[in-house]
Amino acid sequence: MTWTQVVIQLRARERGCHLITSEVVHHLNLNSLRVGLVHLFLQHTSAALTLNENCDVDVRRDMEMHLNTLVPEDAPYTHTMEGKDDMPAHIKSSLLGVSLTIPIRQGKLALGTWQGIWLCEARNHGGRRTILATIQGE
Amino acid sequence: MTWTQVVIQLRARERGCHLITSEVVHHLNLNSLRVGLVHLFLQHTSAALTLNENCDVDVRRDMEMHLNTLVPEDAPYTHTMEGKDDMPAHIKSSLLGVSLTIPIRQGKLALGTWQGIWLCEARNHGGRRTILATIQGE
Amino acid sequence: MTWTQVVIQLRARERGCHLITSEVVHHLNLNSLRVGLVHLFLQHTSAALTLNENCDVDVRRDMEMHLNTLVPEDAPYTHTMEGKDDMPAHIKSSLLGVSLTIPIRQGKLALGTWQGIWLCEARNHGGRRTILATIQGE
Repeated sequence: MTWTQVVIQLRARERGCHLITSEVVHHLNLNSLRVGLVHLFLQHTSAALTLNENCDVDVRRDMEMHLNTLVPEDAPYTHTMEGKDDMPAHIKSSLLGVSLTIPIRQGKLALGTWQGIWLCEARNHGGRRTILATIQGE
Repeated sequence: MTWTQVVIQLRARERGCHLITSEVVHHLNLNSLRVGLVHLFLQHTSAALTLNENCDVDVRRDMEMHLNTLVPEDAPYTHTMEGKDDMPAHIKSSLLGVSLTIPIRQGKLALGTWQGIWLCEARNHGGRRTILATIQGE
Repeated sequence: MTWTQVVIQLRARERGCHLITSEVVHHLNLNSLRVGLVHLFLQHTSAALTLNENCDVDVRRDMEMHLNTLVPEDAPYTHTMEGKDDMPAHIKSSLLGVSLTIPIRQGKLALGTWQGIWLCEARNHGGRRTILATIQGE
């Protein structure tokens, strides 16, 4: 049984949903683990991590469009000091969540055929984002 | 400390929310674990796992109804090649999530009195679904 | 590698979003753990746990307001025996989720600067709530 922790710094991305599977996997050393779990923890409150389709970019665009419909900028929010995109970003972050737990099987993430890791950037200018990855297994 | 991994094949179910607690528990051997965690990971992007009420089927029907209100089929999606139910299914999957972590206590899942495991099938014809269960504990 | 489990009884709170980070941390003894994970599991189906902004109470008020917009009480629910707030509470619980996994780093929760633990009480009179915390690490 081993534990490791890795800080993954993601470059700034524009608002919307982004496929980051390969960037995340690049930072994880899973080869020696027969079975285990990877926990990815985004240390922010205005972006989110989710698992979804890894192939068609239209899925990511449609998701961003519908998130904006579900959580519009023009609702009567009180928390508006940091811009109209700020409070909606907090709500989207909680709806999607900021952490993922993914099983490890035979040295690899056991993702389904169509599953990829998405960063959903909900701010117009969110800047760099940090994921703390915790890996346990044997 | 032990790790085990089990593949759980769920039979095809109709669109909607389904209580699958007993079917899932049937595949887990938790008797020998005093404390631990079960991680359930649905390897799909158009269905979801969630915890909710385990008694009244109306709760599951109302959930399905309201998910269809939150994520309607007639929104202006671009990703429509696989049918009108496809893009909404992807969105519902991310809103609810595809993985659950449930504590083990004295050889059993430590669910609350009213908590059950739900599969939310978001496609009209989703087919069989696969859960990879990872169990750790001592 | 050690495992511990702690039952955290939260006092009854009014409907809305509440910052409970310090109350939760008070019950966890993480000092001796260099690396690990804390799993918080709310054993209920009409409230939720989420991570969000830990500073401005307006964020919590705006979240409660928008959750009520997303899941209104006057929709045509069938499950209404326990009051108009009951079925919306079940839906909010699944949208936000009832469990959190938070990394431990050098004896502390590795939360981001602005991240706090929220209890989202979705019932008008939800009463006391129970969290089962499972801590593992080394």
